Amino acid sequence: MDRSVVDRPIHCLPTPALLLDRDACDRNLKRMADHFSAGPARLRPHFKNHKCTRLAHRQLLAGSAVGITCAKLAEAEVLAGYGMDDILIANQVVGPSKLDRLARLARRANVSLAVDSYESVDAISRTMAAADAIVGVLIEVDIGMGRCGVEPGEPVWELARRIVDLPGIRFRGLQAYEGHAVYVEDRQRRAHLARHAMRQAIESAELLRQKGIPVPCISGGSTATATITGTMDGVSEIQAGTYATMDWKYEQLAPEFEIALSVLAAVISTRAGRAVVDVGVKGIGSEFGPPRVKHTPQARIVSFLAEEHGVIQDAPAWRVGATVELIPSHACTTCNLHRQMFVHAEGRVVDVWPIDASGCLT
Amino acid sequence: MDRSVVDRPIHCLPTPALLLDRDACDRNLKRMADHFSAGPARLRPHFKNHKCTRLAHRQLLAGSAVGITCAKLAEAEVLAGYGMDDILIANQVVGPSKLDRLARLARRANVSLAVDSYESVDAISRTMAAADAIVGVLIEVDIGMGRCGVEPGEPVWELARRIVDLPGIRFRGLQAYEGHAVYVEDRQRRAHLARHAMRQAIESAELLRQKGIPVPCISGGSTATATITGTMDGVSEIQAGTYATMDWKYEQLAPEFEIALSVLAAVISTRAGRAVVDVGVKGIGSEFGPPRVKHTPQARIVSFLAEEHGVIQDAPAWRVGATVELIPSHACTTCNLHRQMFVHAEGRVVDVWPIDASGCLT
Repeated sequence: MDRSVVDRPIHCLPTPALLLDRDACDRNLKRMADHFSAGPARLRPHFKNHKCTRLAHRQLLAGSAVGITCAKLAEAEVLAGYGMDDILIANQVVGPSKLDRLARLARRANVSLAVDSYESVDAISRTMAAADAIVGVLIEVDIGMGRCGVEPGEPVWELARRIVDLPGIRFRGLQAYEGHAVYVEDRQRRAHLARHAMRQAIESAELLRQKGIPVPCISGGSTATATITGTMDGVSEIQAGTYATMDWKYEQLAPEFEIALSVLAAVISTRAGRAVVDVGVKGIGSEFGPPRVKHTPQARIVSFLAEEHGVIQDAPAWRVGATVELIPSHACTTCNLHRQMFVHAEGRVVDVWPIDASGCLT
Repeated sequence: MDRSVVDRPIHCLPTPALLLDRDACDRNLKRMADHFSAGPARLRPHFKNHKCTRLAHRQLLAGSAVGITCAKLAEAEVLAGYGMDDILIANQVVGPSKLDRLARLARRANVSLAVDSYESVDAISRTMAAADAIVGVLIEVDIGMGRCGVEPGEPVWELARRIVDLPGIRFRGLQAYEGHAVYVEDRQRRAHLARHAMRQAIESAELLRQKGIPVPCISGGSTATATITGTMDGVSEIQAGTYATMDWKYEQLAPEFEIALSVLAAVISTRAGRAVVDVGVKGIGSEFGPPRVKHTPQARIVSFLAEEHGVIQDAPAWRVGATVELIPSHACTTCNLHRQMFVHAEGRVVDVWPIDASGCLT
């Protein structure tokens, strides 16, 4: 990592370069932390957004956090390597070699993960008991997204009953992600959907308590539903991620946060009203649409499929070599494509942070 | 990189894992090399497909190759570091810091790049002359794709005239990519479009020759047009890339090549007729559609936007922990998301190759 760029103007960076506006990001962290400072729900920031331990550390320092969330065992290993504790892998982890890694990890950090099947629970318990390790497990409940998870109600109770009797694992509660509500643009409709979804997790927890199984935690949520499900009685933790960096898609959903992330690109070719920049889908995640040009609303990237090029229509009269900032539609996949982010303030680089979990897939 | 997996069955690999079928890949390399063995056009394999120097080396050993193509200066640096010579960066390189790197690179390898503006040509010449280095330049001609490049005919001659008078750069010919024809599924229509496009480069070269400027080379093409523009009089080099690994999109375009690339994924959750696997858009490039399940045509991944999950509909009765192979729609972005490829034959890992230019964006 080249730290010699610190103090230089951002427009001198080799392009494409991932930029993070320090002050905008800090305001986002503070705003979300403030929201949860009074409780009862707390924050468990989702690392998958940026995969950068330096930024994760800053998120925890901002307050109101009980720990950190990630999506993959390999991400959890990076977080533990950085010294973090109380790590939730909000996902299933399967297969003997991964469970061996999980056992090693559980001996040096407080780790939990989601489960949704008997096979999985039994295998985790066997491996942990044999390694003299303990992991926390949260039963993933499918509250309407239709991905992983058991159905709410009785199936949760059936699986919980199995878990509490097994060695090497500790029942920590429920993982419930209202993902099908997150991208609903109408906020009232989103709130209705998200609350209806989360109520199924809350009722499942009630059922378990009635039957004598304590449920310490319900964990779920996202930046777009943090102030909706995060204020419901019984919800313990919100796994918000994108609020740290933001992107143009999430700005439509949660406009109280600022876009702190951009990709600096250079103009490499021009023609009347058109410019070509040196970044394509290998440098900007575009699942929710092409990037937008910062401060230049009339300029449009109409299609964005090239690997290393972006064609901008209705462009101002930029010269070859000029730099522009592009706002991605999807921050999470964008950060994963880079190896470092250049943190800047007042037009200058103030720090370079490795994206140390980039490419951590397993 | 974990080489302890060599000799193990592929289904034991930590998932998601990028797999390369050695024999299918070798047959692809031989088929393309054989096609160009009689000339007059030669092959200049495009590194951007896989970004793996070990595989690039194998492509050159397969024969008929004059050198290698890449899309980025950082890729060229990796190739030169591996010991490759005659590297064409089929793209514009702009900005002072990159030109300094280009000059350093040009002192240890034979490097060429594309140019399409006076500013760029002048800047490259100044930097190379000051560093006592020489790079080859190819004028990029826009033959219909509408991305970079000068218009065919007079503008090519104007820029060539400038180039031949400047120090530090050597005029090597024309870069002409018929990219707008590549994805046309009807082969006759594709051939018509591609030939019409490439004729504009050939006629531009004729114009230069009439005016006394030798044009040693016209470089362009792709896997989907290799046997079309690669047989035209005057075309010197074909920059085919995807034929090495293939993907399901290119199989529709060039069915004479075999799909050698897949992503091994594990089933992490099941329900009647549905399975969830542990890979999403952070592990499989999906610009041309969701991945397909190898050997299981009835199984469908209907939408594929999740970062770490793939939901398979109409799935067989797989158990949690079962592994499946997914065929991506886009090999180039898939390889870029991984750090290594597991080379396999007869169901076992035979080698592990680093994807050493993964994330080389600048």
